[in-house]
Amino acid sequence: MHTALFTIPLWLDLTAVAIGAIQGAMFSGRLKEHRIDLLGVTIIGVVVGLGGGLLRDLLLNVPLALIQTNWYLIVATVAAIIGMLLQRAFARLNPLIIALDAVTIGLFGAIGTTKALSVGVPVVPAVFVGVVAAVGGSILRDMMLNLPIALMHVGSLYAVAAGAGTILLVALAAAGIDITIAGLACVAVTTLIRLLAVRFGWSLPEQRAIGSWMRWRRA
Amino acid sequence: MHTALFTIPLWLDLTAVAIGAIQGAMFSGRLKEHRIDLLGVTIIGVVVGLGGGLLRDLLLNVPLALIQTNWYLIVATVAAIIGMLLQRAFARLNPLIIALDAVTIGLFGAIGTTKALSVGVPVVPAVFVGVVAAVGGSILRDMMLNLPIALMHVGSLYAVAAGAGTILLVALAAAGIDITIAGLACVAVTTLIRLLAVRFGWSLPEQRAIGSWMRWRRA
Amino acid sequence: MHTALFTIPLWLDLTAVAIGAIQGAMFSGRLKEHRIDLLGVTIIGVVVGLGGGLLRDLLLNVPLALIQTNWYLIVATVAAIIGMLLQRAFARLNPLIIALDAVTIGLFGAIGTTKALSVGVPVVPAVFVGVVAAVGGSILRDMMLNLPIALMHVGSLYAVAAGAGTILLVALAAAGIDITIAGLACVAVTTLIRLLAVRFGWSLPEQRAIGSWMRWRRA
Repeated sequence: MHTALFTIPLWLDLTAVAIGAIQGAMFSGRLKEHRIDLLGVTIIGVVVGLGGGLLRDLLLNVPLALIQTNWYLIVATVAAIIGMLLQRAFARLNPLIIALDAVTIGLFGAIGTTKALSVGVPVVPAVFVGVVAAVGGSILRDMMLNLPIALMHVGSLYAVAAGAGTILLVALAAAGIDITIAGLACVAVTTLIRLLAVRFGWSLPEQRAIGSWMRWRRA
Repeated sequence: MHTALFTIPLWLDLTAVAIGAIQGAMFSGRLKEHRIDLLGVTIIGVVVGLGGGLLRDLLLNVPLALIQTNWYLIVATVAAIIGMLLQRAFARLNPLIIALDAVTIGLFGAIGTTKALSVGVPVVPAVFVGVVAAVGGSILRDMMLNLPIALMHVGSLYAVAAGAGTILLVALAAAGIDITIAGLACVAVTTLIRLLAVRFGWSLPEQRAIGSWMRWRRA
Repeated sequence: MHTALFTIPLWLDLTAVAIGAIQGAMFSGRLKEHRIDLLGVTIIGVVVGLGGGLLRDLLLNVPLALIQTNWYLIVATVAAIIGMLLQRAFARLNPLIIALDAVTIGLFGAIGTTKALSVGVPVVPAVFVGVVAAVGGSILRDMMLNLPIALMHVGSLYAVAAGAGTILLVALAAAGIDITIAGLACVAVTTLIRLLAVRFGWSLPEQRAIGSWMRWRRA
């Protein structure tokens, strides 16, 4: 299924990068016990903003968007510095940041999956690339900070939200729906699942749970 | 030395991926103290099954096998879920799993090195690519779980087994031996070294040992 | 700005790789409590020597220099083994190693940025690629050893030194200066900043510092 790239305006892509970078810098700025210096906080911000797109392009073996223009690095760096300096102010806007972040995951997922489809990747790896694009920045962040990867631990539905959205996108595209509409549906579903998960404290069962469930069934 | 690709049947490659994914899921499933959720266990399974091939293709700068067809991700995901659900059953089959795993390392090494040779990579980096393909999944696993990388610590002869096998492959290929036979020899030698290492508890000397040996020589 | 590649002689590039590998092996050789085996020490040496160039070529989506010839892996491996065996001897040469290391960062940065410019990368990402080439080996080292990434913590001016040098290179190249001279200027500036930072104990302010500075301003 070769499909036209879901052309997202550059300003919208850069907005997603900026929100990611602000969040990343705020996150690492709270880790006082790590004694991270100013450069470290900025680096983490840039990694969160650009890491997903970096992994996406490496998986697709295409030229990295990140190095095709000056804008990505400039926007990510400036946003990371702003996030670091205005931590206190942004902390008060936390609900807004969470909402924007949910939209960002949806956007990164939609861009990643449509970019994969547009270079001829089959549907299953196209969903995989979209999910990696959506959550890759936070995985790299946790690996660089020596933290347990949030994604793999109880309490996170990031990847599930991105997976649901990108699967919907692929299904709609396969059904002949216009790719822009499929992309918007992906963003909407991902955002909704993520916000509901935050609101109602949804999480995946811990693996222990399955163990006890199986013991219970056998009892 | 350009040589025909050691064409391994897709079903055999997928079998190796599945064994890796089962092992990976079983391994992370035992880490109860990490509070990894079901998704995390599945991710680690997929990473162990597909990580070596991913790093191999990144090193070779070729399109990733992983995203060329739906099969790799489907097989790895299903195998990881099976490994997670049937932990107890598989634990009883441990000797079988260890044997299959040794064969898997040999297969990944043989596929990696011949793929490298087939795109014109010189012999030393071809061996390097084969070893990375053989052990890359377990390195990524340990980095994502914040564990010391098993490969670099006392008690593991994984990389040595893969190195011996792939060096033999390159030597046989240089001597004009048919690539399929060279590949089988690689798998046999790697499997044998790995199994003997497990059976007799072989390990590399810890670096401390060299220190004392040098002090002893000077004494 | 397409510019001719700053052609660095292969022997000079390999010398930089060797110094990095020696340093990497000496560094991990000192981590007695990690119980790293001889293979692990060698691996870390190779990673420090070759990691920056590896990340550079992945970012540029070009064939990896590392696998184009046998020399890189042979030199890095031999240097890592020498670094491991002669730890005590090299420890006495510490000032020389620090000086050579500063030159090495400058060389990696200059090679990385000119390689990026030569394949048509804009100036901001070209600087980014140069800095990653200069510090990438040490980032990979710390991630593989489960250590806090030195680069992001108080006390390191590695990245700043590399950034200043590569920005100068880009500015000189844009002004029409011969690329060899721009490259030498980059190496000189990077080396100087790094050595002055070591000599005078310069470091970036910890993020806490900004917090107190802002509180002070408001008081």
